[in-house]
Amino acid sequence: MNEPILLTPGPLTTTLATKQAMLRDWGSWDDTFNALTASVCADLVGIVHGEQTHVCIPLQGSGTFAVEAALGTLVPKGCKVLVPNNGAYCQRIIRILGYLGHEAVELPFGDDQPADPARIGAALLADPAISHVAQVHCETGTGILNPLPKIAQVVAQAGRRLIVDAMSSYGAIPIDLGTMPVDALIAASGKCLEGVPGMGFVIARRSVLIDAAGQSHSLAMDLHDQWTYMQRTGQWRFTPPTHVVAALRCAIDQYLAEGGQPARLARYGENCATLVSNMRRLGFRTFLDDAMQAPIIVTFHAPPDHAYEFVEFYHRVREKGFVLYPGKLTTVDTFRVGCIGAIDVTEIRRATEAIGATLLEMGVQKLG
Amino acid sequence: MNEPILLTPGPLTTTLATKQAMLRDWGSWDDTFNALTASVCADLVGIVHGEQTHVCIPLQGSGTFAVEAALGTLVPKGCKVLVPNNGAYCQRIIRILGYLGHEAVELPFGDDQPADPARIGAALLADPAISHVAQVHCETGTGILNPLPKIAQVVAQAGRRLIVDAMSSYGAIPIDLGTMPVDALIAASGKCLEGVPGMGFVIARRSVLIDAAGQSHSLAMDLHDQWTYMQRTGQWRFTPPTHVVAALRCAIDQYLAEGGQPARLARYGENCATLVSNMRRLGFRTFLDDAMQAPIIVTFHAPPDHAYEFVEFYHRVREKGFVLYPGKLTTVDTFRVGCIGAIDVTEIRRATEAIGATLLEMGVQKLG
Repeated sequence: MNEPILLTPGPLTTTLATKQAMLRDWGSWDDTFNALTASVCADLVGIVHGEQTHVCIPLQGSGTFAVEAALGTLVPKGCKVLVPNNGAYCQRIIRILGYLGHEAVELPFGDDQPADPARIGAALLADPAISHVAQVHCETGTGILNPLPKIAQVVAQAGRRLIVDAMSSYGAIPIDLGTMPVDALIAASGKCLEGVPGMGFVIARRSVLIDAAGQSHSLAMDLHDQWTYMQRTGQWRFTPPTHVVAALRCAIDQYLAEGGQPARLARYGENCATLVSNMRRLGFRTFLDDAMQAPIIVTFHAPPDHAYEFVEFYHRVREKGFVLYPGKLTTVDTFRVGCIGAIDVTEIRRATEAIGATLLEMGVQKLG
Repeated sequence: MNEPILLTPGPLTTTLATKQAMLRDWGSWDDTFNALTASVCADLVGIVHGEQTHVCIPLQGSGTFAVEAALGTLVPKGCKVLVPNNGAYCQRIIRILGYLGHEAVELPFGDDQPADPARIGAALLADPAISHVAQVHCETGTGILNPLPKIAQVVAQAGRRLIVDAMSSYGAIPIDLGTMPVDALIAASGKCLEGVPGMGFVIARRSVLIDAAGQSHSLAMDLHDQWTYMQRTGQWRFTPPTHVVAALRCAIDQYLAEGGQPARLARYGENCATLVSNMRRLGFRTFLDDAMQAPIIVTFHAPPDHAYEFVEFYHRVREKGFVLYPGKLTTVDTFRVGCIGAIDVTEIRRATEAIGATLLEMGVQKLG
């Protein structure tokens, strides 16, 4: 099939087994499919140790649908939400809050600076009207890791609620809902769990979800309605993406067999270290300092050489079998390379070789 | 795999080729995937002859997400919407309008009565404040076909706008946007096109869509934003269900090769006629008169025999390889059997044999 390796933050390269799990049609009313959904949800809660306090509500659509559903369902009308902003996905949360009619209070950080728990605490102290904080864990726009445990502590100490977009971190970076006060954690099928895209999910605190009846701006994205219906019937309210759910079941099986979160983090960590080290050897500069880099996706400065042009670079690397990802920064010219998916250092080494060969072909010399 | 045949209105049984199209991972930024999306959208407009006037906006999620997106994006705030109601999916539209804060005017019909164009015309005449009509084409709750061409004519004559939920009819029942005044037609991947579930789409009048900037209640379901972004970049705004899109491309190829809408209608018509005739031979009664029955899904009265119980009936038929569907009527005890999917009269004959054998096993004698 001449299928390239995706070095992108989802959709990503999945195993053949995961894709083969889609070679079957499932009835959405059937017991076997209901059992599949229930087992997926149980595992999704377990991965972040939320069994005592949290429930999983799966939702059709991309991760952004689940983020909007969580904010729309769990934040009461007229609330004021603090959004520590260091990237594109923080910005998207602000945009969603605008649609929902919630007041967003932006706390800006540089794209290359982690959200600072002390400044978050100060912002909450300064404005008692802020009821919620919406925090991105790993900002896919740059690959920066925000210090979630400390942020959760500060938010709880201030007596406010915390909603976390864990899209790019869930499953790879440790998250412990048993010790970290979080009302809702949002992620999706096609990220570090290495499923295929098409389904998001929200791990919500049961007590908060129960209180959220009638709050949603949307029927399709009403998590309270989705959950109560599922509790009653075992079924999704509206047609589920059955093949995507089956692929996720298979991907989670492989995730658990690999050793769960620690094993996944170790593999991605190796991928990232190899990528960064090989790219630096070629002369590339990373956008972030190593200390704040999550092993999920790495942003590199575009070479400041007139022979470099991203689209040509992309296509030449793609011809060699690797799909890169464009940058998402408006002020700095960058591109991104993902470390996640069913790949290991072998693919990363081949990819950096392909990138090196492409630089030679294009005559790009000045890299830093 | 011991996979049963799904006699359900979606998810349904798809061909192996359609499922095998999911054995590849696609980059959502990649030209090859953008081309896939563009070709799918072009075909979806072409199937209903909307090339001159309409555009296709694909949307992540189930069909209901697309229905809500169409109502949320295309109906301006504060509008009054007439909903001819003869079933569960009409009822769902009323529920969505409630979430959106639009005033829904319900025009009730019996579950076994098609929506009457004359009564719709009279309702519009009686209330000039009604700006839109939201009409279900084939009501999946019972399988009834509403007379869309006449309804479209009446709505246009009254100078109102028409939005059509064509979830169960699109691709099988003829729809000609070249002659029928419709602002938006909504359907999904996993119905009569025989793709897998996970994507809806709206075929919207270009001029109406252009005027809809800023109207949506939701970022994720903002069709204007989705369309303008796609026009500019060729990409979906948020992670697309890549495998579902690839499966739909493959399913549409097979649809066109089979002979398009006329061929699909002919096959489903044969399936339906065989189903109804064999079930009547067993003694079952259809809920609808034949004249208003769409060849999509057939509702049968539950046998009024104390030996009959749906869940046992369902499981016994399933053991024989066929998945039935429960009824969706609150006042009458029924069950449903779908005629759609990658099946023909061979499967229908085997299914009705399995149903006949199950009646004998259960000792069900009184059927009508």
